[in-house]
Amino acid sequence: MSAPVPSGLEALLGPGGLITDPQEMAPYVTGWRYGQGRARFVARPATTEAVAALLARCRAEGVRVVPQGANTGLVGASVPDMGGEMAVLSLERLDRLEVDPADRTALAGGGVRLSALNAALAPHGLFFPVDLGADPCVGGMVATNTGGTRLLRYGDVRRNLLGVEVVLADGTVVDALSPLRKNNAGLDWKQLFTGTSGLFGVVTAASLQTAPLPRQVSAALVAVEDGAAALALLLAAEAGLGETLSAFEAMSAEALAPVFRHLPNPFDLVPPYAVLVEASTALPATAFDLEAALQGVLEAHLEAGGPGILDARFGRAEAFWALRHRISESLREEGRVLAFDLSVPRSSLPAFTAEARARVAAAWPWLRVCDFGHWGDGGTHLNLVWREEAAPGDPAGWIPEVQAGLYALAVEGFRGSYSAEHGVGPHNQRSFDRFTPAPVKAAGAALRAHFDPAGILGTARLW
Amino acid sequence: MSAPVPSGLEALLGPGGLITDPQEMAPYVTGWRYGQGRARFVARPATTEAVAALLARCRAEGVRVVPQGANTGLVGASVPDMGGEMAVLSLERLDRLEVDPADRTALAGGGVRLSALNAALAPHGLFFPVDLGADPCVGGMVATNTGGTRLLRYGDVRRNLLGVEVVLADGTVVDALSPLRKNNAGLDWKQLFTGTSGLFGVVTAASLQTAPLPRQVSAALVAVEDGAAALALLLAAEAGLGETLSAFEAMSAEALAPVFRHLPNPFDLVPPYAVLVEASTALPATAFDLEAALQGVLEAHLEAGGPGILDARFGRAEAFWALRHRISESLREEGRVLAFDLSVPRSSLPAFTAEARARVAAAWPWLRVCDFGHWGDGGTHLNLVWREEAAPGDPAGWIPEVQAGLYALAVEGFRGSYSAEHGVGPHNQRSFDRFTPAPVKAAGAALRAHFDPAGILGTARLW
Repeated sequence: MSAPVPSGLEALLGPGGLITDPQEMAPYVTGWRYGQGRARFVARPATTEAVAALLARCRAEGVRVVPQGANTGLVGASVPDMGGEMAVLSLERLDRLEVDPADRTALAGGGVRLSALNAALAPHGLFFPVDLGADPCVGGMVATNTGGTRLLRYGDVRRNLLGVEVVLADGTVVDALSPLRKNNAGLDWKQLFTGTSGLFGVVTAASLQTAPLPRQVSAALVAVEDGAAALALLLAAEAGLGETLSAFEAMSAEALAPVFRHLPNPFDLVPPYAVLVEASTALPATAFDLEAALQGVLEAHLEAGGPGILDARFGRAEAFWALRHRISESLREEGRVLAFDLSVPRSSLPAFTAEARARVAAAWPWLRVCDFGHWGDGGTHLNLVWREEAAPGDPAGWIPEVQAGLYALAVEGFRGSYSAEHGVGPHNQRSFDRFTPAPVKAAGAALRAHFDPAGILGTARLW
Repeated sequence: MSAPVPSGLEALLGPGGLITDPQEMAPYVTGWRYGQGRARFVARPATTEAVAALLARCRAEGVRVVPQGANTGLVGASVPDMGGEMAVLSLERLDRLEVDPADRTALAGGGVRLSALNAALAPHGLFFPVDLGADPCVGGMVATNTGGTRLLRYGDVRRNLLGVEVVLADGTVVDALSPLRKNNAGLDWKQLFTGTSGLFGVVTAASLQTAPLPRQVSAALVAVEDGAAALALLLAAEAGLGETLSAFEAMSAEALAPVFRHLPNPFDLVPPYAVLVEASTALPATAFDLEAALQGVLEAHLEAGGPGILDARFGRAEAFWALRHRISESLREEGRVLAFDLSVPRSSLPAFTAEARARVAAAWPWLRVCDFGHWGDGGTHLNLVWREEAAPGDPAGWIPEVQAGLYALAVEGFRGSYSAEHGVGPHNQRSFDRFTPAPVKAAGAALRAHFDPAGILGTARLW
């Protein structure tokens, strides 16, 4: 049984604002990939003031609250624990949305979906350039600092965030929404709430910088013989395509082969790595032939003796992206999947990947390394796949050892990150605890003590 | 007389590491534009370890310390106060510098000058794209979060900062230098030391993301009849030039007329505003004719009835930048100058500027508004010039009123900033005190209490 719902919340939240029925609460207590909890109630405030009143009330009653955006996060940070004592604060009804085309900015409520934001921006020739597989909402994107496939060109949410409105744990509303590109007046307040899993405050709205929509997108799929060849290709693409390079995704044979059971392989064989090189530009084709430029750069790289290029295909970017986006699903059909979200300095990607493969082969031979990821910015999803019948006993017995081994290799062996873009939540709390330097934890503790001494917000721990 | 120098510092700092002679200390205690203080001594540690030992020693002895980079800041944050009790910690000998071309990053000591950084990057076809009038060093750039003229395209220091090494007030060294583009593991530690004037720790090194050097730079100088026409031109330039637009600087007639006493005016008259539109690209001219694209965009804007365009000149970007960079000096020849570093949401620039001009004309008619600035990102240096003989009495009597009036107009009237890019120091402490929301001050106080409870670092106050 869950704990009782404080009285008066229905009036505070208005019609449709309070959910207490267990079946209706189910989608709010189940994580996208990880996390399954139980909630005392789900609150869906429709205004910032209602969020403030709710938090003040919860704090007074000692009710812990987990803020939740679209619940598409991958570390379990947006669902309550199993205790049944926590409340879910869903942002989904915070849906204000204003576009200022002359400012090239948007003011979006915490519950506005990325797709809705882009739909409102498109008529102005603009878009929000944080490109993701899921359709999160703005509040969750800020609290997670989502990255995605075009970070190489446009940066993460932090890079495109101009202002935030935050409600603190005691119900204080702080409007720092002014969309200033230049504001160098001391501590950058919004950074405290970006990527901190809702632990210091609830992001109820954000001012976002947007980018001109590309007028041309060109892509190539390049077959290369190893990681070193992929890295050499990256340097050639950056040197030749400059600011138009918008994505550089490397996919290993092990990640692609399962995809080719569903979608045609444009090559004769499955190459060791296939690299999706995407360039895009807001320049019109009359001023600049992007397709020709992309072909020219790849040809010049080959003619200059660019190492390890096996083959290349040009074509519709969508077709190549379809391969990339099919990987996760296809891997799940191959067996069970242990997913990773790692990054290292990008010049270390070939060495790191080789070392990781060697360690897996030596210590856990039933695991297949199916790596793919954002090589342009050092990110790699080094996913591991296994067939249950080939693995020894209960995975719960050996998975922690595999995780600890590969996280340590990335963080301690290659100065990398155990969480390149997914953020911190209960799913990877253990890695935070192990790898975070003591002074960083201490700063997190000081901020938590300052913002939320009673500790009512969130489920992760950044200290 | 200054207070005595603690014993043993010479040995700790090594040869050339300690300055106590008042004449030799003079450049370290005099600010670039504002600030004149007195120092107990100047320490020039050559290693991070020496910085740590020095701070531990100063803390033990109760010596307050002001960290100083190249001392080119404009808010007086890098010089000691007049008490003669403070020490200056100069970063200038922290000069390590390593470039990783495959990573497209540089690791630079806090004392590396921007010019030296760019000299080391150029052979690799790279540069650090924060473009400034001065030649600051890396530690100061991080502590100030410098912006500059190409922020529109490349962002500020924060945007290009991948990691920091910081020495805390108690001598703890925190190495968070790994150059990760994606690292979403909770609180972003480096943000606490970016733009916070050295108050939470001393930035002894930084990992920086760099950009491909442009292969082509094209510029136009466009005469427009008013601010609204400048804004319309900005939108046309962004729509047509996309990611190649690298600067958009508007200069009023009042700011330019004095420049034209030294450099030729390319127009027949001095226009109400002249706009420097710069585009640049890493694409070679064989793939993309940037000059033609820039001309095409401006012609299309005219043909589409773009409002208020009076004239346009194409030519060497350097010649147009020479006009822009001559403004500050030329204004000083016209009389005395009261400088501002303001920003507003960029769509409000015309209205804000008109309102500011009207207020100045009504209340302080002896002041001439000579505004110019980074209109592409909402920044404007709304400098005021007057002849001493025309002004009433001692400027110290009325300057605070003018400053308070224009700061309030920007911040409260237009949701702008009193410090767009110069940061916070004693020079603008009063504005910080007046305009900073209480919760932001409270967070600053909590961080100060955490990092430096004895309060030995810096001269500004972010709480």
